[in-house]
Amino acid sequence: MLVDAGSVQLGGRSSARWRADRPACVSLTPNVLLTEGGGVEVDRYGATMLAVTAQRIAPDNPLSALRIGAVAEPEPPAGWTTVSVRAAALNHHDVWTLRGVGVRAERLPIVLGCDAAGVDEDGNEVMVHAVISSSGWAGDETLDPKRSLLSELHDGTFAELVAVPRRNLVPKPKSLSFEEAACLPTAWLTAYRMLFTQSGLRPGGTVLVQGAGGGVASALIALGSAAGHRVWATSRDEAKRARAAELGADATFEPGARLPERVDAVMETVGAATWSHSMKSLRPGGTVVVSGATSGQSPSADLNRVFFLQLRVIGSTMGTRAELEHLGRFLELTGVRPSIDSTLPLSDAAQGFARMIEGDLFGKIVFTL
Amino acid sequence: MLVDAGSVQLGGRSSARWRADRPACVSLTPNVLLTEGGGVEVDRYGATMLAVTAQRIAPDNPLSALRIGAVAEPEPPAGWTTVSVRAAALNHHDVWTLRGVGVRAERLPIVLGCDAAGVDEDGNEVMVHAVISSSGWAGDETLDPKRSLLSELHDGTFAELVAVPRRNLVPKPKSLSFEEAACLPTAWLTAYRMLFTQSGLRPGGTVLVQGAGGGVASALIALGSAAGHRVWATSRDEAKRARAAELGADATFEPGARLPERVDAVMETVGAATWSHSMKSLRPGGTVVVSGATSGQSPSADLNRVFFLQLRVIGSTMGTRAELEHLGRFLELTGVRPSIDSTLPLSDAAQGFARMIEGDLFGKIVFTL
Amino acid sequence: MLVDAGSVQLGGRSSARWRADRPACVSLTPNVLLTEGGGVEVDRYGATMLAVTAQRIAPDNPLSALRIGAVAEPEPPAGWTTVSVRAAALNHHDVWTLRGVGVRAERLPIVLGCDAAGVDEDGNEVMVHAVISSSGWAGDETLDPKRSLLSELHDGTFAELVAVPRRNLVPKPKSLSFEEAACLPTAWLTAYRMLFTQSGLRPGGTVLVQGAGGGVASALIALGSAAGHRVWATSRDEAKRARAAELGADATFEPGARLPERVDAVMETVGAATWSHSMKSLRPGGTVVVSGATSGQSPSADLNRVFFLQLRVIGSTMGTRAELEHLGRFLELTGVRPSIDSTLPLSDAAQGFARMIEGDLFGKIVFTL
Amino acid sequence: MLVDAGSVQLGGRSSARWRADRPACVSLTPNVLLTEGGGVEVDRYGATMLAVTAQRIAPDNPLSALRIGAVAEPEPPAGWTTVSVRAAALNHHDVWTLRGVGVRAERLPIVLGCDAAGVDEDGNEVMVHAVISSSGWAGDETLDPKRSLLSELHDGTFAELVAVPRRNLVPKPKSLSFEEAACLPTAWLTAYRMLFTQSGLRPGGTVLVQGAGGGVASALIALGSAAGHRVWATSRDEAKRARAAELGADATFEPGARLPERVDAVMETVGAATWSHSMKSLRPGGTVVVSGATSGQSPSADLNRVFFLQLRVIGSTMGTRAELEHLGRFLELTGVRPSIDSTLPLSDAAQGFARMIEGDLFGKIVFTL
Repeated sequence: MLVDAGSVQLGGRSSARWRADRPACVSLTPNVLLTEGGGVEVDRYGATMLAVTAQRIAPDNPLSALRIGAVAEPEPPAGWTTVSVRAAALNHHDVWTLRGVGVRAERLPIVLGCDAAGVDEDGNEVMVHAVISSSGWAGDETLDPKRSLLSELHDGTFAELVAVPRRNLVPKPKSLSFEEAACLPTAWLTAYRMLFTQSGLRPGGTVLVQGAGGGVASALIALGSAAGHRVWATSRDEAKRARAAELGADATFEPGARLPERVDAVMETVGAATWSHSMKSLRPGGTVVVSGATSGQSPSADLNRVFFLQLRVIGSTMGTRAELEHLGRFLELTGVRPSIDSTLPLSDAAQGFARMIEGDLFGKIVFTL
Repeated sequence: MLVDAGSVQLGGRSSARWRADRPACVSLTPNVLLTEGGGVEVDRYGATMLAVTAQRIAPDNPLSALRIGAVAEPEPPAGWTTVSVRAAALNHHDVWTLRGVGVRAERLPIVLGCDAAGVDEDGNEVMVHAVISSSGWAGDETLDPKRSLLSELHDGTFAELVAVPRRNLVPKPKSLSFEEAACLPTAWLTAYRMLFTQSGLRPGGTVLVQGAGGGVASALIALGSAAGHRVWATSRDEAKRARAAELGADATFEPGARLPERVDAVMETVGAATWSHSMKSLRPGGTVVVSGATSGQSPSADLNRVFFLQLRVIGSTMGTRAELEHLGRFLELTGVRPSIDSTLPLSDAAQGFARMIEGDLFGKIVFTL
Repeated sequence: MLVDAGSVQLGGRSSARWRADRPACVSLTPNVLLTEGGGVEVDRYGATMLAVTAQRIAPDNPLSALRIGAVAEPEPPAGWTTVSVRAAALNHHDVWTLRGVGVRAERLPIVLGCDAAGVDEDGNEVMVHAVISSSGWAGDETLDPKRSLLSELHDGTFAELVAVPRRNLVPKPKSLSFEEAACLPTAWLTAYRMLFTQSGLRPGGTVLVQGAGGGVASALIALGSAAGHRVWATSRDEAKRARAAELGADATFEPGARLPERVDAVMETVGAATWSHSMKSLRPGGTVVVSGATSGQSPSADLNRVFFLQLRVIGSTMGTRAELEHLGRFLELTGVRPSIDSTLPLSDAAQGFARMIEGDLFGKIVFTL
Repeated sequence: MLVDAGSVQLGGRSSARWRADRPACVSLTPNVLLTEGGGVEVDRYGATMLAVTAQRIAPDNPLSALRIGAVAEPEPPAGWTTVSVRAAALNHHDVWTLRGVGVRAERLPIVLGCDAAGVDEDGNEVMVHAVISSSGWAGDETLDPKRSLLSELHDGTFAELVAVPRRNLVPKPKSLSFEEAACLPTAWLTAYRMLFTQSGLRPGGTVLVQGAGGGVASALIALGSAAGHRVWATSRDEAKRARAAELGADATFEPGARLPERVDAVMETVGAATWSHSMKSLRPGGTVVVSGATSGQSPSADLNRVFFLQLRVIGSTMGTRAELEHLGRFLELTGVRPSIDSTLPLSDAAQGFARMIEGDLFGKIVFTL
């Protein structure tokens, strides 16, 4: 059945707001139908809301699995609460979900989106910490073997409302916009933990950031520089090296270049293509922090170098709620802000996904509500 | 015997340079005589140099023990080298030495001065790390029970030449002047270690600096702010609170004030007058770092609070060579610079000592050569 | 109304077991009545169980506030579970609760007891971790400002059943009896955390344990020795020094004695009476870990010594679930076992309380069910 | 020229002792000549001593490069001292030196041997720390990029006298024999640092030791067990697994076996053959410490696993003087002793080298003097 936006009773608090406050969304419905290739299953009695969902696994054509339309509002279980999303940032993780990486088919359809900033039930402006601990876990959330990210097991942030454990709310830094704050919980939090928890760097130290174009790498350059580290960055691309310098890199290099001196730490998200250079660039006792391996995950472990120079290879993924809170305050104090490539209404999310799939971005794509 | 600067053969490389390059010093000799109340003992055959020495212990009138005049040039033992001093900063430590604190009478006379920047024997611009390890010590220099500071066992930096172990040389940051660099090795290094090695603070954390007027406290405020911490500072004096805000404090308070929230760490140099407030201001698991106790060293240890909240009290003193090197680069990267109250030629050092004894300073007094 | 044990329907699973399996308890009722000086309020319809409760605050005569009798069985909220208690150890904390320390009057009556081992709802043998985190807390449980110990906010372990969050269950080490396992969650866990998390000791290091007679101190000596540390212990009492040597102390000393050399760490539970000696006994950079201050909490903080020798004063209280799990395995591997002074049926708990109040014990008093 | 031991004036204190005290050495000379295939170059005027030297690089026939005979006594430079060697343990490192690995041809001939225990110039019984720091190095000796091991740049311990920096002397644990103490400074020190400095293990933790047959692995099993860890060990060889159990392993496994649960840390000296199993065996946040890679140094770095589980790969090599001192005391306290395969007089060192080259040993070969 085709949906007639004018006649369907979407019902409920948030959907009413959606329709009343955001006229751009009126034109959404036909697009939605084209995107998903089917009818919107509207619960005519329960409250619904606008959301972006992965409908199925589509490894080769991820956009074909994207659906933008009405879903039932979340009903938070005990200990959980809902956030009225104002801005949500797009991550490669969302495209991977459409491709079927990191999600199980039986969990679909699921609302996409890891990152969000919005307003909680008491009217406070908040960021949402995206790491969902399993029941009864204590200690560092990122070490919980049963943890998940929003949109892996639980519906994500590309929706008018997102349900999260109450403890996953973090005050939004006042001087950051919702759009800026929405960029922090994934890429920037990852960068914060790599640099400030895992690396062993001390102020005035030297850090090499491999692959300066990526989202985490950009955050690493900006954060490292603002904390008083000497940041060196590599990229194959001259424009990206120039961009790295603007973000605060003290010097930039082509991949594999001989550095002026050995560094205290290397930040790795590239993997196989830069690994050997990373290992050779470290001083005795130096640390390489790894949070990704986009070019390949199986370079040589280089064990002789590791033990003779007493190198440290430290894996890192996401960050804790406490780290997110510190990150927020650090940006507030230093004036550092995430770069935003473009802002789109959530109803136009398909455009954002298409841009991310097509090519290089210069900062984050943020959806607003 | 009165010294006639025109006729005395001061001999040697450095003293020749002194006379030729620094005409201001020609007028030195009469001052010297007034200051010391006696003749300059010049070795007519060995090389001599201008130096500021503590001649004896004078608890009540420290200036009376000060002598400015010619001494024999140092002859560095194996493993040591000499630095041609260009700038040397004055510390309270120098006044304490004149008063007999931290020095043994049998070691006098001794050249005063802990801090220096200058040029090494190969022409490199250097800072001098003031902590002299005992023979055979390995590990953190500041934990060596037989360590000393320059001017405690070995002649200090208030001289044309200072002899130090070769490993105590640290490259001077290029963008800092000699005068600025001379301020780093004592107060600023102490602050660096407190904040960045001992406190457990992570970027975005909140730190309370007690007694904002002091030299170490000023450095703490400037360093903490530049590293992206939220710095709160206390002082009894409104002008000092205003100054703290200029240096980067996010907020300032009267001593003992109730803070907006508990802090991650407190930096203590005041001691008894602020101790109770420091302990009450810490969050569970928080850290107070102590590097001095000018208002008294015996407040209550407050053990119930310590164990129930799992507080950490961490003593700190000076810093390592590696920390000094990092400090230099941190200043270079962040643009932070030590405040200099005034610059005087070394021959006018007595004026500087008098100013420090008399009252409050607004930054360091630096002697130049 | 007086209770006639023969006629009252105590109802429910556990109380039935209590009466059927433990004939000694039949004689309980008169004792109970004497102890509490009043009638047992039995819920004739709900299930009840035997429990030891603090009825009111009695600073001067704690035994007068003790009641042993039937109470309603716990009904665990979501995320909680019940443990069928087999053994529960007595701590000074229980006497303090009767005296009104650490508990609020409006929470009374409350079931006493922090320590327990028993059987969970699935039949697994477990220890109970006594630190109850507040809702939504993540990270080290002992740093949660809203944490409580069992018997502070929630009914404790001196009962047939105790309700606890599911995550507070830890597998009982197989080779330990229930009585032995019941001794671990308070005193021994405190000792584990002091020595192995907080002290910075490394195997082969030297540790001074002040006040060798106490429960935590005994655990410190046994654990430290079993981990390959050189343990030195002090006590005023020759018998306690002899006992310390039996537990593994390498040498024992009178309080304040000059030690053969400075130590890496001091374990403090005594406070004012030993504090000065503790500080003087530390090597530069050494650590004193404090988990109590029974002789007074306000000795001098000795700040000059703290900063000049870079000493570390580290507060410690209880331990985490993960530490309890490690402690259990450590005892299993090393063969170390807690000393048990005496074992009593829970119905005779008043005797145990009386013994603890009267004087020195040689190990723990354990109540069995 | 052939040497006639009866007529040659070997001169000097130590050589006199050698001849007088050790009649077994009289028969040495012919063996020496056979071994080296040439005459002993005796300095007829200076003092000489018995020593085992690498004469040249012999990759295929290392024994052919071994020489046992008289060399000049060392003349220690300033800050150095000599130790009269009583026992020296053989390491694979010594065979590698003969093969030309880790030594430069222009430095030959050089006295072999890293490990020693003996008597210093003041008559104290000492162990020799084998890591020689470069001039002016401060901090962890093992991180000095210019460090060397005895027998790499400086003459080693297979001699009557060895010259070392004074700070490299460590008191010999009283209850260890010279032979036992001589086993500590290389393999056992390496194991100590891996387990107790690098691994992050806490008492009661679980550690997997790969390749239970090796010298470092044996030390790891014995040390880990004595410190209260649960030690699991792998070996292809049943006899070695049995031996591991005797040394304290709680359980043993075939290489690659599925373990009962994931471990806190893995100790790696094997490399490629066990690496994948090591990585898969770690719990989230677990640590693999690497001090060698005898089966290959280039397994996959397995980066996805590293970052997703936040694993830590920590290189380790040798240990510090302070760690050696702690190791000595740890053995003294726990009663753990190194296994000694056989003891030979230094004059029969060629037999020991031959045994090590031929095959498996059951503990260390120690040379005595």
